[in-house]
Amino acid sequence: MMNDPRIEELLDFVRFPTVSAQKIHRTDMLACADWLVAKFRRMGLDARAASTPGFPVVVAKSLRDPNKKTVLIYGHYDVQPADPLDLWSSPPFNPIIRNGRIIGRGASDNKGQILAHIFGVEEAIKEGELPVNVVFLIEGEEEIGSAHLGTFLEAHRDELVCDAIAISDTGMAAEGYPTLSYALRGIATLEVQVKGPAMDLHSGIYGGAVANPVTAAARLVASLHDADGRVAIEGFYDTVQPMANWEREAAADSPVSDDAIAAQAGVTVLWGEAGYSAVERVGARPTAEINGFGGGYQGEGSKTVLPAEAFFKVSFRLVPDQRPDTVLALARRHFEKHCPPGVTLTIINGHGGDPFFLDPTLPQGMAAQRALEEVFGKKPALTREGGSIPILTEFQRTLRHPALLLALASPDCRAHAPDENFPIENFLMGIRLNKALLRELAKS
Amino acid sequence: MMNDPRIEELLDFVRFPTVSAQKIHRTDMLACADWLVAKFRRMGLDARAASTPGFPVVVAKSLRDPNKKTVLIYGHYDVQPADPLDLWSSPPFNPIIRNGRIIGRGASDNKGQILAHIFGVEEAIKEGELPVNVVFLIEGEEEIGSAHLGTFLEAHRDELVCDAIAISDTGMAAEGYPTLSYALRGIATLEVQVKGPAMDLHSGIYGGAVANPVTAAARLVASLHDADGRVAIEGFYDTVQPMANWEREAAADSPVSDDAIAAQAGVTVLWGEAGYSAVERVGARPTAEINGFGGGYQGEGSKTVLPAEAFFKVSFRLVPDQRPDTVLALARRHFEKHCPPGVTLTIINGHGGDPFFLDPTLPQGMAAQRALEEVFGKKPALTREGGSIPILTEFQRTLRHPALLLALASPDCRAHAPDENFPIENFLMGIRLNKALLRELAKS
Repeated sequence: MMNDPRIEELLDFVRFPTVSAQKIHRTDMLACADWLVAKFRRMGLDARAASTPGFPVVVAKSLRDPNKKTVLIYGHYDVQPADPLDLWSSPPFNPIIRNGRIIGRGASDNKGQILAHIFGVEEAIKEGELPVNVVFLIEGEEEIGSAHLGTFLEAHRDELVCDAIAISDTGMAAEGYPTLSYALRGIATLEVQVKGPAMDLHSGIYGGAVANPVTAAARLVASLHDADGRVAIEGFYDTVQPMANWEREAAADSPVSDDAIAAQAGVTVLWGEAGYSAVERVGARPTAEINGFGGGYQGEGSKTVLPAEAFFKVSFRLVPDQRPDTVLALARRHFEKHCPPGVTLTIINGHGGDPFFLDPTLPQGMAAQRALEEVFGKKPALTREGGSIPILTEFQRTLRHPALLLALASPDCRAHAPDENFPIENFLMGIRLNKALLRELAKS
Repeated sequence: MMNDPRIEELLDFVRFPTVSAQKIHRTDMLACADWLVAKFRRMGLDARAASTPGFPVVVAKSLRDPNKKTVLIYGHYDVQPADPLDLWSSPPFNPIIRNGRIIGRGASDNKGQILAHIFGVEEAIKEGELPVNVVFLIEGEEEIGSAHLGTFLEAHRDELVCDAIAISDTGMAAEGYPTLSYALRGIATLEVQVKGPAMDLHSGIYGGAVANPVTAAARLVASLHDADGRVAIEGFYDTVQPMANWEREAAADSPVSDDAIAAQAGVTVLWGEAGYSAVERVGARPTAEINGFGGGYQGEGSKTVLPAEAFFKVSFRLVPDQRPDTVLALARRHFEKHCPPGVTLTIINGHGGDPFFLDPTLPQGMAAQRALEEVFGKKPALTREGGSIPILTEFQRTLRHPALLLALASPDCRAHAPDENFPIENFLMGIRLNKALLRELAKS
């Protein structure tokens, strides 16, 4: 298996340090887009790296046969930042194979998953039986909010016309368990910068008379949740839709236990909003999470300083019918209202994306469930995912056809974390799944 | 003035990057101690760098004439860390002179001040009129809690016997204003480490089901103060002595206005415990200050992670009769009691020091006030200082004579902060003050 050229190509793909959040990686981003274009051209597809005001979108199309249905396959070649680097057991952009898994930043999210689809199509072409027209759309800004993809979809709507959208950027409910995700949370991010004195002050000479911006920032963070783990921003839950009965039943049937989630996360006890299981908390309930907080002395030992400033970064995960703009406005009002005296706030809105919801009994949804059952040999789990693919609602709105989320990532893939990994088994199953899916969608 | 050899020597002294908190500077520390020993030997004093389990203590003595009183002059050659480096307008250990001030880490705290005393003694010796026996004691661990100085004082009590202790490591009440500080706050420091999941997690996949250690740390920080700015740790104020009437009058007579403190700190509004002026808050009231807080993503842009851990560093400033050990025990109980579910705490106690208090009407205190009035031409302010010199109470306990705190630092000296500075004027006044002080103490 180690000499499988498909795996060698995946390793090559992961070696590009395509961190879209960091300007220093611009050249790597462009090189990776070119690598994809070359791959598609070798497969005989019409491919290009289409420029945007940000990073290019790679588009690749088979000849469009009007007698066939068309499937758009979406993925992304950008990845999350790799830090903290010292917690990786091997270099994030020099992938290795260990225990049957490829370890590297982006191995699972999303390079391994999208490349499985690419190989599925390549094999179908070689076998002379591509049952549908395919359009690949692989962007470079998913991890920073897909800022330019919406405009791109609008501008290229004609060449992107399709009957279904296939995406593998989600996690299996359990290892090797076929999974169709019918909902994803939306997202809204912001950063709060808290400014106090003009410079770091001696904590003895000024401490007690000047407000400490780190303490103020901590008080703002503490104000975000009540004692029951609910988000304490006024109006935050106003538009949240309760789960339907069939959804609570699907969640109860989930192959994922609370214990399994705790074990994957490496915690002894779970935490969260009262009245919901862990599966429901991450899939169907909104959150406010602190992604980073910094202020004052970060080094060894002590430094008796009253810091000049502090910051914290928040991401909200949203469920239907919450909207990012509304949540960001509510959050801004909350922070301004709760701002302690003696400091000033700068609130910077980040990227946002609507929550996604698909009725899994639509024809395309049924085709996806059949393909999953065929390849994995059991009835797929229907899940709500906690993560976000902000552009999904844009796809459905612009292209007017359902987006099918077929999970290939393992539950312990460590996406966004050190030692992100992708099982070679999932990669090979993904290639088979692509072929079964295109066949079933051709019939749907 | 630029060619004054005394200023050149001060620049040389500041060039040693003597950061005692950072192991990498060990060689610099030893070199600086040797530099001081060489200086004292050139002055004709009996000098050595006495080793300790930490950094050496420099001891230098004149011949002990039994007919003269003996004055011990204390200072320190170690400095605070220089970071954040990017906020310095010139390199911290490559001092420059601008607007009559020497800018560099340690210029004010404590190299400029102790060197003024050294030059005072050097000039008196050259002029043939050293009116008292002098003992210099210059340590290298003041900024990290003087861990080994107490033992050193005990072990060398006989050679350190004296009638008064002179220290310039405090700030003038106002620019050029003679100041005798009769009280200093004590200190107690700790670091709290908050651990959550085994690794950084995807905030979408786990957010809402796993406790966030940054949020937990922020809630602990927020629990430290009540809405009136008082420390909310149970028992924290139990042993705090109220200010005497003469003290509140001295504070009201202070040349320092709340507006001046706000201007120095670069804030538009002050903050603090209700019922006290800013001068009283920093001098006579205890505090809990967050010196640093870190957790999760610190870089550019956003990273949607649920961090594995967070930390914060706290320093408490103490007033009579609070004790560091007691306060640290109360704080530990507070954090353990308020620890949110789903995370675990590790609490690491740091250095501590008792608060200091001296009756300024003792003969040595009156001699110091006369010397200050003679040199500065006005009646000195009697102040309580917010900072800490942890070893002070040890001096008084071991050597059984009063410690006199004669301020030479400017109110805007930016001690512990970027662009720390020391006016050349203060340096020259300090040399004169040393000579006047030794004369007055000889008569006291």
